[in-house]
Amino acid sequence: MDEFDEIARLYRPLTRGAPEALDLLDDAAVIPSRPGYDLVVTKDAIVAGVHFLPDDPLDLVARKLLRVNLSDLAAKAAEPYAYFLAVAWPTACGFAERERFAKGLAQDQQAFGLRLFGGDTVSTPGPLTASLTVMGWAPSGGAVRRGGAKVGDVVLVSGTIGDGGLGLKAAQGALEGVTHDEAAWLADRYRLPQPRLQLRQTLRDHASAAADVSDGLLADAGHVGTASGAGITLDLDSLPLSAAARTWVGAQPDPCAALLVLASLGDDYEIVCTARPSAVDALTTSAATAGVRLAAIGRVTAAHGLAARYAGAPVAIQRTGWSHV
Amino acid sequence: MDEFDEIARLYRPLTRGAPEALDLLDDAAVIPSRPGYDLVVTKDAIVAGVHFLPDDPLDLVARKLLRVNLSDLAAKAAEPYAYFLAVAWPTACGFAERERFAKGLAQDQQAFGLRLFGGDTVSTPGPLTASLTVMGWAPSGGAVRRGGAKVGDVVLVSGTIGDGGLGLKAAQGALEGVTHDEAAWLADRYRLPQPRLQLRQTLRDHASAAADVSDGLLADAGHVGTASGAGITLDLDSLPLSAAARTWVGAQPDPCAALLVLASLGDDYEIVCTARPSAVDALTTSAATAGVRLAAIGRVTAAHGLAARYAGAPVAIQRTGWSHV
Repeated sequence: MDEFDEIARLYRPLTRGAPEALDLLDDAAVIPSRPGYDLVVTKDAIVAGVHFLPDDPLDLVARKLLRVNLSDLAAKAAEPYAYFLAVAWPTACGFAERERFAKGLAQDQQAFGLRLFGGDTVSTPGPLTASLTVMGWAPSGGAVRRGGAKVGDVVLVSGTIGDGGLGLKAAQGALEGVTHDEAAWLADRYRLPQPRLQLRQTLRDHASAAADVSDGLLADAGHVGTASGAGITLDLDSLPLSAAARTWVGAQPDPCAALLVLASLGDDYEIVCTARPSAVDALTTSAATAGVRLAAIGRVTAAHGLAARYAGAPVAIQRTGWSHV
Repeated sequence: MDEFDEIARLYRPLTRGAPEALDLLDDAAVIPSRPGYDLVVTKDAIVAGVHFLPDDPLDLVARKLLRVNLSDLAAKAAEPYAYFLAVAWPTACGFAERERFAKGLAQDQQAFGLRLFGGDTVSTPGPLTASLTVMGWAPSGGAVRRGGAKVGDVVLVSGTIGDGGLGLKAAQGALEGVTHDEAAWLADRYRLPQPRLQLRQTLRDHASAAADVSDGLLADAGHVGTASGAGITLDLDSLPLSAAARTWVGAQPDPCAALLVLASLGDDYEIVCTARPSAVDALTTSAATAGVRLAAIGRVTAAHGLAARYAGAPVAIQRTGWSHV
């Protein structure tokens, strides 16, 4: 099977007939303008052995790749629209593996309202490498940015923090201090994050700034501060934790140090956002209606930089997150 | 230097302050709609050792990556606008090499009118792998597509054919039958293709269909036929050749077989297009005014599939181009 047969069999069905994709028969996709809307575009890449485990099932890898990009759209309050895929396949990956990857894409693009508009498949002597360019729409000027936080704003985060990072360790069989069931639950959280797209309207209506938590809460909250020209102070004892993460913290000698680890791990794909104090009730109520719990975890400050407190006292931060360079 | 310092030093300058890029401080770029225009989007990936030689200078690699994507925009008659970059860096690549790559991007984005809007840098245990998503604008409905050819249209191609493929062999030191200077010229054509963006207005005004010649003339002309629901017949003796390619053909035992090889090699990044017979004069005159020679090389036919002739007689086609799977 050559490249063109593979495109026809595996990828053309993923366009679902979108006219923009030109049946993947052309040099490019053609996207009509949508007056009154901005196109929100994000691009992330993943490498086997770096961003996922080499023996992770490829349908899950594809779904995670879609989801980590969708998490960026969620943080901008954008509505999913389309994606472009580039995959470098190791020659050892046969049709069955490529088909499994495409099936993962099909499953999640359906769930999240995306269609494939184009891309490229190439071969590599190295590990499986894929990059996705994902596009969404936001009403003109309505994309929520990292740079909108104001001094005095409350910092909030969705869901629970630290599960993705603990889940990576669990998936590697290297996590101690939790039950077998908790380890399995955490590994699932790592392998298949839930982009918080249901927060779109909530963020657009009530948040002053937002980012997704991919590099670790401390790092990503810090980015909101930097982009906003302000500082961020987080209260570690306010971090929302899953039952499994609470079990893990309970097994550590120093709870403050353990919370700092959880706030430094990546792969949560939650949303960290800020809001005026007067908007916090409306924000959390709207989020709850959308099925997501938002927890207040800190403040935007006039002092630049990131600070953390535990039991009201300052905590030194050594590491603000993983960076995948 | 961490990922964020690297972004600030190497990549933020490539945004040239474009507001869409949000200083690369955000989760995504935000592109305002441009009523009356379509956004034309292409995505290509390259892998060291597959699409470029492992010891090619990284500024040239970056420039070629931009140019192969720009060639897709040229074929659609789109005006270059922006790009998103994902790079997987081998850990052995230090800052000097990354800087050289960024300098190549800076040089060519300036020459071709692009700005960087976002992307991702990751590490890889494998070869350097990069993917680019390039965007351009075309007046609404004005992007020239592969699917517009009609039976009876003339097939034309820009510049000269086969130089890129011969140039690859020359760059590997494996090309015989040409002079030293010709080999060097061909290797340059391979390393640094010239996207035919100056044909934009010409194609929009006079062409019925167009594609860029990246996989080989036969393959790409064949794609125009397939997308148009028609066939293509090419006259191999009409292929426009460079002086170096003519030298090479002259050194081969069978000129027809040699022309078939040139028409099957990839990496030309010329434009193959079609036009109504009545539009051919205006098309070629307009192209000449833009500084590009277009040669008539065949016809669009009612019989599906791709056919070739030499000295008026049919020629069997064994291979229609390289596919990088």
